[in-house]
Amino acid sequence: MHSTDSAPASRKNRRGGGRHARHAERASATVERAPYICRQVATYDVLNEEGLCLIEQNADSILQDIGMEFTDDQEILELFRDAGADVQGTRVRFEPGHPRSIIQDTAPPQFIQHARNPANNVVIGGNNTVLCPSFGPPFIHNLDEGRRYATLADFHDLVKIHHMIPWLHHSGGIVCEPTDIPVNKRHLDMLLGHFRYSDRGCFGALIGAERARDSVNMAKILFGDDFVDQNCVLYSVANTNAPLVLDQAMSGALKTYAANNQAVACTPWTLAGAMSPCTVAGTLAQVLAEALAVCALTQLVRPGAPCLMGSFATAISMQSGAPTFGNPEGAKLVLAAGQLARRLGVPFHTVGSLSASKLPDGQSQQEATMGLIMAVLAGANFINHATGWLEGGLVTGYEKTIIDADLCGKLIDFCQGIDLSSEAQALDAIAEVGPGAHFLSSQHTLSNYENAFYMSDVADNNSYEQWSEDGGLDTAQRANTIWKAYLENYQEPKLDPARLEELEEYVVKRKAEMPDNYY
Amino acid sequence: MHSTDSAPASRKNRRGGGRHARHAERASATVERAPYICRQVATYDVLNEEGLCLIEQNADSILQDIGMEFTDDQEILELFRDAGADVQGTRVRFEPGHPRSIIQDTAPPQFIQHARNPANNVVIGGNNTVLCPSFGPPFIHNLDEGRRYATLADFHDLVKIHHMIPWLHHSGGIVCEPTDIPVNKRHLDMLLGHFRYSDRGCFGALIGAERARDSVNMAKILFGDDFVDQNCVLYSVANTNAPLVLDQAMSGALKTYAANNQAVACTPWTLAGAMSPCTVAGTLAQVLAEALAVCALTQLVRPGAPCLMGSFATAISMQSGAPTFGNPEGAKLVLAAGQLARRLGVPFHTVGSLSASKLPDGQSQQEATMGLIMAVLAGANFINHATGWLEGGLVTGYEKTIIDADLCGKLIDFCQGIDLSSEAQALDAIAEVGPGAHFLSSQHTLSNYENAFYMSDVADNNSYEQWSEDGGLDTAQRANTIWKAYLENYQEPKLDPARLEELEEYVVKRKAEMPDNYY
Repeated sequence: MHSTDSAPASRKNRRGGGRHARHAERASATVERAPYICRQVATYDVLNEEGLCLIEQNADSILQDIGMEFTDDQEILELFRDAGADVQGTRVRFEPGHPRSIIQDTAPPQFIQHARNPANNVVIGGNNTVLCPSFGPPFIHNLDEGRRYATLADFHDLVKIHHMIPWLHHSGGIVCEPTDIPVNKRHLDMLLGHFRYSDRGCFGALIGAERARDSVNMAKILFGDDFVDQNCVLYSVANTNAPLVLDQAMSGALKTYAANNQAVACTPWTLAGAMSPCTVAGTLAQVLAEALAVCALTQLVRPGAPCLMGSFATAISMQSGAPTFGNPEGAKLVLAAGQLARRLGVPFHTVGSLSASKLPDGQSQQEATMGLIMAVLAGANFINHATGWLEGGLVTGYEKTIIDADLCGKLIDFCQGIDLSSEAQALDAIAEVGPGAHFLSSQHTLSNYENAFYMSDVADNNSYEQWSEDGGLDTAQRANTIWKAYLENYQEPKLDPARLEELEEYVVKRKAEMPDNYY
Repeated sequence: MHSTDSAPASRKNRRGGGRHARHAERASATVERAPYICRQVATYDVLNEEGLCLIEQNADSILQDIGMEFTDDQEILELFRDAGADVQGTRVRFEPGHPRSIIQDTAPPQFIQHARNPANNVVIGGNNTVLCPSFGPPFIHNLDEGRRYATLADFHDLVKIHHMIPWLHHSGGIVCEPTDIPVNKRHLDMLLGHFRYSDRGCFGALIGAERARDSVNMAKILFGDDFVDQNCVLYSVANTNAPLVLDQAMSGALKTYAANNQAVACTPWTLAGAMSPCTVAGTLAQVLAEALAVCALTQLVRPGAPCLMGSFATAISMQSGAPTFGNPEGAKLVLAAGQLARRLGVPFHTVGSLSASKLPDGQSQQEATMGLIMAVLAGANFINHATGWLEGGLVTGYEKTIIDADLCGKLIDFCQGIDLSSEAQALDAIAEVGPGAHFLSSQHTLSNYENAFYMSDVADNNSYEQWSEDGGLDTAQRANTIWKAYLENYQEPKLDPARLEELEEYVVKRKAEMPDNYY
């Protein structure tokens, strides 16, 4: 029971003049927006105390009896040995409760990721949720061109579209892979793209210590050396190689970010049945074990560095081995993982609008809606892939991005809970109108209608006849006009030209130091 | 935390041989199915105690100060007067707590609706949920024919398709309007269609005492007079004319059903902003007030007759006045209404996969998924329109029905909660596989893979290349082949020929007694 008045996410649509005018208004750079969700409603608990203790005990057993592999990095093994873990070769085993106590000793329960526009700083942790766009796809899909390899131009367009969407809170990372740029140089162009075309927070490069160092160096150009050392300005994810391995590509970046006080979401990426047991309970224990070990590592690298417990866990088709999304197993996993993270006392990172669909169609929305609702109800503090993901992460869909963003808007409103103010109780209005009349022209409705309800720009609620007259478009076709309007109305957020020049110089210099690699 | 072992909804897919074989198997009349959901997971509470008390107080105030209109029925006014209510003209006012105490004195907290096949009896109330198909649309939509007026042939086809869907639990009522039959005779053909082509429970006619009497008479032919008097065999809904009116069309049927011990879901049908205040809190108080008055009426007609508190509440577009669905307001309303019904102590009726979309596209699934998930998390005991609804209830979509049914399957699985059995914990499997290996060929996976995960028949989880080779179909196109397979494989559930003949004779006789009316 909460009033919406004080919630930072209290953005409501104030529009008039029909769909076209609404698009134009929404597509303007000045649309009212909240920096993140401050959730006023409860989380949904799928496990009770007994179940949670059981999963925690099992995770402890896994870390004690089997342990976790940290490959190709002697420093990590020494950190763990110094902390009292049992290190044999690259295998690290822990006494029950040991990683948890390392984490709870120093990891912050919440932290701020600073954006270059302070109005877009996000608080990660507590009752707050940050919605972040699609991450990682090498392809894009849109209605005009179908599916094709993504380019840096797509990357820039997607950053701009995301920047315009009022219901996203983060510029993300690899919104698509710029496949026209050498693999070993993409991270430079991507970070420059985020810093230039959006003033929200973004990811640093995830793979390898070298790219992470570039990310930190570029962040220091933008924010200043001291500020970066004392504040989180980059977000990153360290995915395990489930089961129970963290490899050098991930651990190298992790160490760099943690050492520089930047956020690392320690995120087992698990396809149950392939990379973990084909059960929710087994997968949960393994996810928690991996997250505990990796979160503990961040704290050994730099006590107090921001870390999150992450979970990206879904099922596979037992016929084909293909991953499936928006499924009931994924729902149970994310809800339970959220509970486990809260008990651990660090923020929770997970994933949102996933789909295996090739098109922005019914399957894509059934799966995405199931996924994003459950992530929100899980109390996730950071939801990656809240928009755009198609084809199991191979594709960022332009139209899917717009349709998913509408769901983000709905859930932002949902998270405000029920306004129980005197005005919202509306007893006078009910008395004024009386039995059998209507509220359309009541004083209460006239006073409140502008902000009364969430309004979708993508949905068509008109009559069949009106819809037919408007061209009989499906959801994706309507979304197509919306992302184009966003691009058309996009305005580059102001950036100090000296900083931009310095960033560009850094990119040029670093590119010149490396040969082009396309693998 | 629950084991799936004992849940009646523990149906899992056991299939092999690819999509075609799966369709054939699913389309067989012998597919394993559970009669209803026995929910093993918690409800989601959107209001706290303070908020719930406030809404209850406001509902009491409305009934005390404004009261409710019961039009064109002197008997109802006398029932209320005799019970101690303040009756002036057609306006009935109640002392605070009075309707609640009438209801709590005699209304059953749960009851069984008997089906002609006892295996399909449903328990309505408690932690149980019954999923029921689309109700009311005068049009159908399918990919072959587009949108057109529905006929009795469609009605029969939809009953057959619903009968084949393992994730529905009820045959429903007006699965579409048979517009080729006179308005005043449709109810006879519809009930005969349900009784003949499905052996699940169904609705009686909702409008008017006469049609309700026909429904009861036909049920008595099927079940026997005494059985019907002592047991619920028909389900019905009494919608208020919000705000605060129950008219004769609805109250006449209500009285007939209640007098015959048949179930009535007392369901304010509310478009917030038009038929109730443009706020969630105001709408909730009005919904509760109306449901209290109408539920109390059922108990005054026949103490102990099964009744439900219902809520069908959504928002409108404040620009066009058109109803909107799958919106955050609807989510908050259904979750809170579920809480209010549980406190009242009667089962909760609501609605599921609603959409304003004209097509089985992205909008339709985003809205339907939001709606059905929230209805399930609200702990609804009966969910009408769990499949098929398009265009704000004007259309039953054949493909939408199939796509929504897939969501029903997912939520049935979700409601089983997390299996925490020793086998599901899978610690041995995690030890057997060890770091860096995979679980695909582990003993645990081999023992469990058949039932491990929910498997969608509608979703395509294949690679882009495989999907392209399969024709590059969208979700609706795949759903099109599934409903056709259902119809092809449909087998009429056995019905005593003497009973069928008697039912048919009743329909012929009653039709002969009335002129054809098309209004």
